[in-house]
Amino acid sequence: MAEAPASRKLVIASHNPGKVREIRDLLAPLGFDIISAGEAGAPEPEETGHTFAQNALIKAEACMTATGLPALADDSGLEVDALGGAPGIYAARWAGPEKDFGVAMERVERELQQAGAKTLQDRRANFACALALAGTDDCYHIFIGRVFGHLVWPPRGDRGFGYDPIFVPDGYDITFGEMDPAEKHRISHRAAAFAKLVAHLRRTETTL
Amino acid sequence: MAEAPASRKLVIASHNPGKVREIRDLLAPLGFDIISAGEAGAPEPEETGHTFAQNALIKAEACMTATGLPALADDSGLEVDALGGAPGIYAARWAGPEKDFGVAMERVERELQQAGAKTLQDRRANFACALALAGTDDCYHIFIGRVFGHLVWPPRGDRGFGYDPIFVPDGYDITFGEMDPAEKHRISHRAAAFAKLVAHLRRTETTL
Repeated sequence: MAEAPASRKLVIASHNPGKVREIRDLLAPLGFDIISAGEAGAPEPEETGHTFAQNALIKAEACMTATGLPALADDSGLEVDALGGAPGIYAARWAGPEKDFGVAMERVERELQQAGAKTLQDRRANFACALALAGTDDCYHIFIGRVFGHLVWPPRGDRGFGYDPIFVPDGYDITFGEMDPAEKHRISHRAAAFAKLVAHLRRTETTL
Repeated sequence: MAEAPASRKLVIASHNPGKVREIRDLLAPLGFDIISAGEAGAPEPEETGHTFAQNALIKAEACMTATGLPALADDSGLEVDALGGAPGIYAARWAGPEKDFGVAMERVERELQQAGAKTLQDRRANFACALALAGTDDCYHIFIGRVFGHLVWPPRGDRGFGYDPIFVPDGYDITFGEMDPAEKHRISHRAAAFAKLVAHLRRTETTL
């Protein structure tokens, strides 16, 4: 067990400095003192869940148990309707050990062709993000956000990451890869999940 | 997908009629229309989680996804301090295919002896119950309740079930197996988890 939890400390169960910085910016106005999993000495558990929510919970719960502090974790990916929701929680795995999302995007397009996808409707997809908050009060909360759209080929734009260059959100004619990052952050699946989390934190005025 | 969700329908992800009846009695005052997983045609997923919270979430999420209705699931067990929290999520499995908790209790006592447990402090244990509520609004909530005490040998009383005959809760000198059921339901781990759930439902006045 680490030191006794202060009222608004929150560990981000991620070893990605960019993600921790982004979350710090989002939650600082609510008075949270954000600590990274690395700073807190938290482990990286195996993601054995079958859904985004389960994987986010596994990470948040392991981090809270190891540090004795409230923890926040996320899990996200791309779900393609015509592929039964694939790649889903395997979105990163499709990119292989080299994390080559060019390969992963080609696989999505190949499987769409094999599934006989022709119309825009056949190419529907969404990004999903699950945020899990594991409190030290034995209460956990999970919030899922989604952004809906369709997939294009070939990939367009180099401003995003992952599957961004093939995803066009509803109401736009450019991909996430072509979109201004501030605009993307405003309408993204992660933004939708964070809006639910922030509403919860404000509503409960929780000390976690 | 089943019919569109009514505002206060709630599926209990359990195929145990006694448990469904107990939860119906607890939540009826809040205006919930309780349906059993059997009535709703919901599946029983494999419990592959590593904690009570993860197993409860797996069951609630699978039930909500299958029925299109908000779902509530629980997972519970006995945690023995000197055994590093075992049997924990394996509490039912220790009873074997015959569900013989006499065998399971003997195993707990044997392992306590092997661990050199002598004092009351060496025999500390708790029951834990995780309740997971999976809403159709992409928000899930998990509430964990615990009751702390110590283990005795030999087993005493036949009014409870499972490990009840060897568990003496703090502040009492009788086991859960000897206790009046109404008294046990008032102080139990499940009561503690339900108190948190009910407080949440009242606070959010959620329509799920």
